[in-house]
Amino acid sequence: MNIPEKMKAAVLMAPGTLEIKEIITPQPGPADVLIKVNSCAICGSDVSLMARPWPGQPPFGSFIPGHEYSGVVVALGETVDEFRLGDRVAVEAHYGCGRCLNCRRGDYTSCLNYGDLSKGHRANGFTTNGGYAEYVVNHINTVYLVPDNISLEEASLVTNAGCVLYGFESLGGLVAGDSVVVMGPGPLGLMSVQVANALGADQVFLLGTRPERLKIGLEAGADHLVNVRETDPIAFVKDRTKGKGADLVIETSGSEEGPDLALHLCKRMGKVLLIGFPHRPVPADFGFMGLNNIHLYSVRGEGRANCRRAISLMKQGKIRARPLITHSFSLSEITEGFRVFNEREGGAIKVLIMP
Amino acid sequence: MNIPEKMKAAVLMAPGTLEIKEIITPQPGPADVLIKVNSCAICGSDVSLMARPWPGQPPFGSFIPGHEYSGVVVALGETVDEFRLGDRVAVEAHYGCGRCLNCRRGDYTSCLNYGDLSKGHRANGFTTNGGYAEYVVNHINTVYLVPDNISLEEASLVTNAGCVLYGFESLGGLVAGDSVVVMGPGPLGLMSVQVANALGADQVFLLGTRPERLKIGLEAGADHLVNVRETDPIAFVKDRTKGKGADLVIETSGSEEGPDLALHLCKRMGKVLLIGFPHRPVPADFGFMGLNNIHLYSVRGEGRANCRRAISLMKQGKIRARPLITHSFSLSEITEGFRVFNEREGGAIKVLIMP
Amino acid sequence: MNIPEKMKAAVLMAPGTLEIKEIITPQPGPADVLIKVNSCAICGSDVSLMARPWPGQPPFGSFIPGHEYSGVVVALGETVDEFRLGDRVAVEAHYGCGRCLNCRRGDYTSCLNYGDLSKGHRANGFTTNGGYAEYVVNHINTVYLVPDNISLEEASLVTNAGCVLYGFESLGGLVAGDSVVVMGPGPLGLMSVQVANALGADQVFLLGTRPERLKIGLEAGADHLVNVRETDPIAFVKDRTKGKGADLVIETSGSEEGPDLALHLCKRMGKVLLIGFPHRPVPADFGFMGLNNIHLYSVRGEGRANCRRAISLMKQGKIRARPLITHSFSLSEITEGFRVFNEREGGAIKVLIMP
Amino acid sequence: MNIPEKMKAAVLMAPGTLEIKEIITPQPGPADVLIKVNSCAICGSDVSLMARPWPGQPPFGSFIPGHEYSGVVVALGETVDEFRLGDRVAVEAHYGCGRCLNCRRGDYTSCLNYGDLSKGHRANGFTTNGGYAEYVVNHINTVYLVPDNISLEEASLVTNAGCVLYGFESLGGLVAGDSVVVMGPGPLGLMSVQVANALGADQVFLLGTRPERLKIGLEAGADHLVNVRETDPIAFVKDRTKGKGADLVIETSGSEEGPDLALHLCKRMGKVLLIGFPHRPVPADFGFMGLNNIHLYSVRGEGRANCRRAISLMKQGKIRARPLITHSFSLSEITEGFRVFNEREGGAIKVLIMP
Repeated sequence: MNIPEKMKAAVLMAPGTLEIKEIITPQPGPADVLIKVNSCAICGSDVSLMARPWPGQPPFGSFIPGHEYSGVVVALGETVDEFRLGDRVAVEAHYGCGRCLNCRRGDYTSCLNYGDLSKGHRANGFTTNGGYAEYVVNHINTVYLVPDNISLEEASLVTNAGCVLYGFESLGGLVAGDSVVVMGPGPLGLMSVQVANALGADQVFLLGTRPERLKIGLEAGADHLVNVRETDPIAFVKDRTKGKGADLVIETSGSEEGPDLALHLCKRMGKVLLIGFPHRPVPADFGFMGLNNIHLYSVRGEGRANCRRAISLMKQGKIRARPLITHSFSLSEITEGFRVFNEREGGAIKVLIMP
Repeated sequence: MNIPEKMKAAVLMAPGTLEIKEIITPQPGPADVLIKVNSCAICGSDVSLMARPWPGQPPFGSFIPGHEYSGVVVALGETVDEFRLGDRVAVEAHYGCGRCLNCRRGDYTSCLNYGDLSKGHRANGFTTNGGYAEYVVNHINTVYLVPDNISLEEASLVTNAGCVLYGFESLGGLVAGDSVVVMGPGPLGLMSVQVANALGADQVFLLGTRPERLKIGLEAGADHLVNVRETDPIAFVKDRTKGKGADLVIETSGSEEGPDLALHLCKRMGKVLLIGFPHRPVPADFGFMGLNNIHLYSVRGEGRANCRRAISLMKQGKIRARPLITHSFSLSEITEGFRVFNEREGGAIKVLIMP
Repeated sequence: MNIPEKMKAAVLMAPGTLEIKEIITPQPGPADVLIKVNSCAICGSDVSLMARPWPGQPPFGSFIPGHEYSGVVVALGETVDEFRLGDRVAVEAHYGCGRCLNCRRGDYTSCLNYGDLSKGHRANGFTTNGGYAEYVVNHINTVYLVPDNISLEEASLVTNAGCVLYGFESLGGLVAGDSVVVMGPGPLGLMSVQVANALGADQVFLLGTRPERLKIGLEAGADHLVNVRETDPIAFVKDRTKGKGADLVIETSGSEEGPDLALHLCKRMGKVLLIGFPHRPVPADFGFMGLNNIHLYSVRGEGRANCRRAISLMKQGKIRARPLITHSFSLSEITEGFRVFNEREGGAIKVLIMP
Repeated sequence: MNIPEKMKAAVLMAPGTLEIKEIITPQPGPADVLIKVNSCAICGSDVSLMARPWPGQPPFGSFIPGHEYSGVVVALGETVDEFRLGDRVAVEAHYGCGRCLNCRRGDYTSCLNYGDLSKGHRANGFTTNGGYAEYVVNHINTVYLVPDNISLEEASLVTNAGCVLYGFESLGGLVAGDSVVVMGPGPLGLMSVQVANALGADQVFLLGTRPERLKIGLEAGADHLVNVRETDPIAFVKDRTKGKGADLVIETSGSEEGPDLALHLCKRMGKVLLIGFPHRPVPADFGFMGLNNIHLYSVRGEGRANCRRAISLMKQGKIRARPLITHSFSLSEITEGFRVFNEREGGAIKVLIMP
């Protein structure tokens, strides 16, 4: 294919400041593919790392963020026969380093060489260049073929869904027949509702504060909507679980009350999964946790190849990305896209940048 | 409620011989309920244990088989407030003994005091009286409330589905996105196809020999039907799994070739679950198993309260019992019912006895 | 055996007040044994529940605490052949109810009918009478035979060790080769050091504030002692784990800084186990937890029959209770025993009451 | 260090025929180290793959076998700072490919690109050159630092012990307090006895046919020796496990009766691990397996970095390699070494080749 020598990309120049630059189009290494980006979804972590660089992030002026993207394979590394030119693909952010003990045991999202590029670590959009660009290079370990019945726009949300599925895999066991509380009707929360349903949850409670967002939860398959400003969520959930609390609680809101409320919504011997996190240390009642033998899991990223599961569930129509995509902007409009996302203008949930 | 002193029941009098007798209606113990049986489904294990008594089975003349039943609660033990008179309920066969190490750790279907009634062991339809009777007593641990949108006829198959779900729970991990082969289009096989789908399997292969049964598998949600008399199943499955084999293989046929074929259908590092078993020792290539690091699981019964999951998936419409129920007979016609089941007359799959 | 009609027991009469009373000797139910108590160890939870009754605890004037005891079987329930008169036995506190979903699945320490005696719940020393008495009744599920090479005094600590082992079982996986931090050199901490060693930990760090207690940790097998008043524990542990932190962190101190410090001592993708808990909600950095994909487990009690493992490790000489037993008192001196325990007089660790 | 351009190596020229050749000393790639081999232990799989090439094995005339070796690092790939020149190291055979789904999830011993060197697969001594040579190249993922208190000769057996530990990790759960049967007193069996002990097994039974080998099992820590030519092993084990059978059965003999006997030695709900495998399909009673809800695991290789655990247990003195090393030969005597190993001359267990 005809690949230009230079491409346009949104480079992080200063806190919160992206500029569209012309830079050299990257070339794939031996086990990489070059992807022409179709769409890259804005994620809350983009906002965070653009405001204040995360550990391992390249310096201002040299870094292209964006980790939830999809596109078309336009060049192959010399050893690659897993993909073909023209393949429509989704990605996961984390390659890892391939040589620390965590990567060796399959826990590459928790790479012990995180951010050490000299050791081979790559996490596109975090420590290496990401998807707010016309082209991006991915190791094949982070690339997934997209079936025909999924659009590339939807495929941008595979990373998001993969993260939720990695959370469910981390919990262990079946979800079928369990009651599940999801806290926070943001993108991860709405996806969690869908995944809980897809895995056979008996009933799903969605907790939030904004009525219009909760309503979208209904379409996502929540059985109960709880506006925590109006209703005591603990009483509500206990009332519908024979006084026991939920088998699983998924906290995605990242609010300061989140972890402690999650523990109190959980039944004895139940499990809590944290996907959203408060920005600073917050109090939690560990005594209650212990008295009720609750285990508290956290996940970072879309680990253990769960993007594979995400794509399959999308293909089967069991999780739907389309309703979460509310806006799209061209690459040159990226700053406006971030504004809309941050201000939730027009009920913005997922905002796509289309390079 | 008005409970007669005597009831009709099908008593096993000799190998393969059931007779309808009038016997004393049993009374519930402190933590039991008395169930008026609506329907009891014939299971292949009934045929087996009626032909040749299983370990722990009561002697001829004193035993009522039948373990897949549903009905209505008509009397409560003195400590029971978990159920109310009139509740529509499904059951699981195994209570266990409640006092061996396996029961203590929740593995009551594998009770170490199996068949020892003096230690409290109860497995209705195996070691204690079952559901081919007007009334039957169950410990509340073995009783499950049936939601309104499930008929009692369908609820008779909860035990069957609970067994399949216990198998999936035993395997560990998520099924979402995995390829699954189901061997044998009998009741357990057709239910396995449905459960694999309900848990998000990427593609489900159903293997069998009878075209009409395989066709039912299509309705059950199989993506691929393989008539092993016409098609090499290993080549077929490998061809559709990039040469790797299936992530999971569920063997329900009980054929002599079953275990070895299951291993060869399985991918490297995959899992095989045996739910059906050959009647005698059969050869298997353990060297192949080891070279491919395959784990081989087996389950007996509907363990670890998986009937709870079964009912939830039925309530959600994700598994359907109705298409598997092909015939029903009154209690007095039970011998005819077994004949139809055994000869698969009229495409018999599940045959209900309605006391 | 000759069992008196009345026995002496320490009855909780008011907050913190035990009185020795003469009361009717209890009789074993059908699946129970009557134990003549040899020794009952004071546990921190005794102090807590005597100060302020725990949920499900019987009222003042009717309750005998004490849950870490051993003794000799002196009477058998009518169905019991698992034990014989004269058997030397250790116990676990929790029977559970045997009929809730958690008990059904083997999680009896997390019984959903906790404290509901009408449902059969029993937790000796918590919701039913315990071991500060001459005699006590135990369901056989809570009784363990003591091998000849373990004294009954040592056997009083089986419950303590069983709790630690249940924690390790809950974490999943092997410990062999892992680095383990134990926080808090109290009885549970010193036992955790021993168990970590017995399971093959590569190196064990013991953290505390009191030099004399830490020294005992050395005998218990700790490789590194860290006085957190003198040494930065995070720097110390990272320095000896190639900058990564520990694979496992066991927090037993119950201090307010405990949970958050535990998270920061843990490596990326590591695990934290809480066995001790602060008395009120305390802050923790859940964002750090998520960024490092840490899972946080808590356990209550000696679940899933882990007293069996505890006794075996004691028999093998891999965990030793003797060094933890610093004092013993007769039943009539129980108040003095509690004083010594509370004031840690004479370096008190475990104090035994000998009825 | 001074590395010669050419080295001596034992090249497989024809079935069963090794010849010492002078060949070019290999050079490490960017993430590799070059190891000067101290000792390489003969393994039963060497004999097998030399007799008849295994899948993925290079052609005669171009392949150096040997996968259980240790040595000293003498050259570093350009990106390597995990090791230093002069480091004493042990190895594992399997690197995997680093790019298939199994490798991605940490199951590199079950690489889906096994034998495909163009995809990067490496398994030294199986698909790439091994340790019967003066020098060998290893990816750092397969290299482990050897502590000072372990000799390099002992370190040659790290791979062997790592395989056993990977088996135990695959089984899940704790071993402490369990009864374990080990079948076959060969190197893997004797190591399994030691590992079972190191993990806290309550009692270990060792089954075999040769009295002198069984006796070594006693030193390895077996509690019971069973000569199956003289004693019925099932009766013996049941007699010492209250009639239940063993919690775990480890079959290492590879005999044709092995798998079926293993099932019958196992308790209800127990686990069987196959580490040795018969050369052809053999019969097993899967019906018995199912009736007793037994799970049957198999492992290939020293997966999931278990060599790390092996080294730690050796360092702690909990497993000892020394007693298993009966002979050593220089590289030029390798054919004699294999003869002694095959004929078990002089009670040969592990035979070392010292290049």
